[in-house]
Amino acid sequence: MPDERRASAESLTPTRRVDVTRVSGQTITRTTDVAAAEEPLDVRLHGKSFAVIMRTPGDDKALAAGFLLSERIIRSFDDVGAIEHCKHPDQTKAHHVVDVYLVGGAASRVPGMLEQRRQVIANSSCGVCGRSTIDELLGELEPLLIDPAAAAVSLDVIRALPDRLRARQSTFDQTGGLHAAAICSPDGGILAIAEDVGRHNAVDKVVGRLLMDARASRSESRILIVSGRVSFEIIQKAWIAGVPIVAAISAPTSLAVDLAHASGVTLVGFLRPGGLNIYAGAERLATG
Amino acid sequence: MPDERRASAESLTPTRRVDVTRVSGQTITRTTDVAAAEEPLDVRLHGKSFAVIMRTPGDDKALAAGFLLSERIIRSFDDVGAIEHCKHPDQTKAHHVVDVYLVGGAASRVPGMLEQRRQVIANSSCGVCGRSTIDELLGELEPLLIDPAAAAVSLDVIRALPDRLRARQSTFDQTGGLHAAAICSPDGGILAIAEDVGRHNAVDKVVGRLLMDARASRSESRILIVSGRVSFEIIQKAWIAGVPIVAAISAPTSLAVDLAHASGVTLVGFLRPGGLNIYAGAERLATG
Repeated sequence: MPDERRASAESLTPTRRVDVTRVSGQTITRTTDVAAAEEPLDVRLHGKSFAVIMRTPGDDKALAAGFLLSERIIRSFDDVGAIEHCKHPDQTKAHHVVDVYLVGGAASRVPGMLEQRRQVIANSSCGVCGRSTIDELLGELEPLLIDPAAAAVSLDVIRALPDRLRARQSTFDQTGGLHAAAICSPDGGILAIAEDVGRHNAVDKVVGRLLMDARASRSESRILIVSGRVSFEIIQKAWIAGVPIVAAISAPTSLAVDLAHASGVTLVGFLRPGGLNIYAGAERLATG
Repeated sequence: MPDERRASAESLTPTRRVDVTRVSGQTITRTTDVAAAEEPLDVRLHGKSFAVIMRTPGDDKALAAGFLLSERIIRSFDDVGAIEHCKHPDQTKAHHVVDVYLVGGAASRVPGMLEQRRQVIANSSCGVCGRSTIDELLGELEPLLIDPAAAAVSLDVIRALPDRLRARQSTFDQTGGLHAAAICSPDGGILAIAEDVGRHNAVDKVVGRLLMDARASRSESRILIVSGRVSFEIIQKAWIAGVPIVAAISAPTSLAVDLAHASGVTLVGFLRPGGLNIYAGAERLATG
């Protein structure tokens, strides 16, 4: 176990030193290694715990903002009056709490949101029979339309994204243990990048970062690139954030493909040096 | 979107066919691909929804059993009176619901458990300040002791596990999109193996499988091997299941290392052809 002093000093960094016995062939050495940090973050709404997220410290406020957008608690950063780390006198604990205060119509909905969240868990009716998650989402969100005025994104831009992402994955190089996500402009420039032990967190962090910087323009074909696989929730987060193109180094799940079709999100998978797969929305890409 | 007939026929298989535009160099072909299936499973306790888990269909009952053990709703399979897929007449929906009925003392605790789960979410007090997740667990669970009578597990056995796991990962070969987990005997024999889009699900499935087969003996140094990285929750699940050795192909997080030390779980990471790292509990391994 790390001692208290060290935990305190390192607690907002994305890595921790750990002791390790390294076995290489017949050679055994005792040394230290760098591991990706994983700590709970309590996201509070108006002083009440809304969610506890296991995350890699760093970009905590962006994570909270992106998470609240993904959960559709907020629609834009205009709904947020204040977002800050807890002011508790014990800062070794308090930096694992982000307090969020909403304003306007969003603020008046907070008690209902907290109650609704309680009911989702406590709901005694069937959670799945007779309902479809995709159908439910389509009842609440408009699919992303293909803008005929927007220029198609070049496949060369998409192909170059993995190297750009890797070049900026500083913590992964040290630990080999983090997911990365970035949001890029149509020419491949990185607008926001984040790393986290949780792939969903990395996406919430970049979405939240753009949201906080008020750069959440929906007017261009932004690209979300993720270092691993694509699940249903990643497509859902891109859809809600209005990011129309998702590219992944690895495979999508079946439900991610289904949701990409339903939501109008362009989905690229298996983005490797030799090629790539387009699962939905090829119209946004200049396939030549 | 898949049509209804196809969804029905394939709905309990771990893969789905999806259409894909494959770009390879300058060649573009329209074809079909196999994606890992991802569907919601509603785990109900005495008819009330306890949790909805996004999972790859297959081993649903084992997943539910392992999940309930991990959540400490059950202590052994003796607590389970019945575990079965929903009997709803619409079987295209009902196979995404597993109904669990407990017996004896566990049954009498169900209303309290459902209420407590509600309170965890609705809790208005600080979720993190002043509490430590590891400390909380240590208040409720005994660390796994090293049995001086048990023979140390050979590093050669540990080294051979990745190839054994890969040889049995049937769906991964098709989709490239699944996590795998297995529980092995001290000589490396595979006792249970599962694949899932969620790494935690794969672990719950193998733990649940051994639980259901009443092979959850704690008398020997069983090994949990996982295809990816190790988070806090994976160590927690091994601890609760009484599996004293966890080996992973990739990196552990900092909190996983901390919990391995606290819980007495042996943790091996970066299990690669050239070597491996031991982060905790090296005493259980014959390092020569």
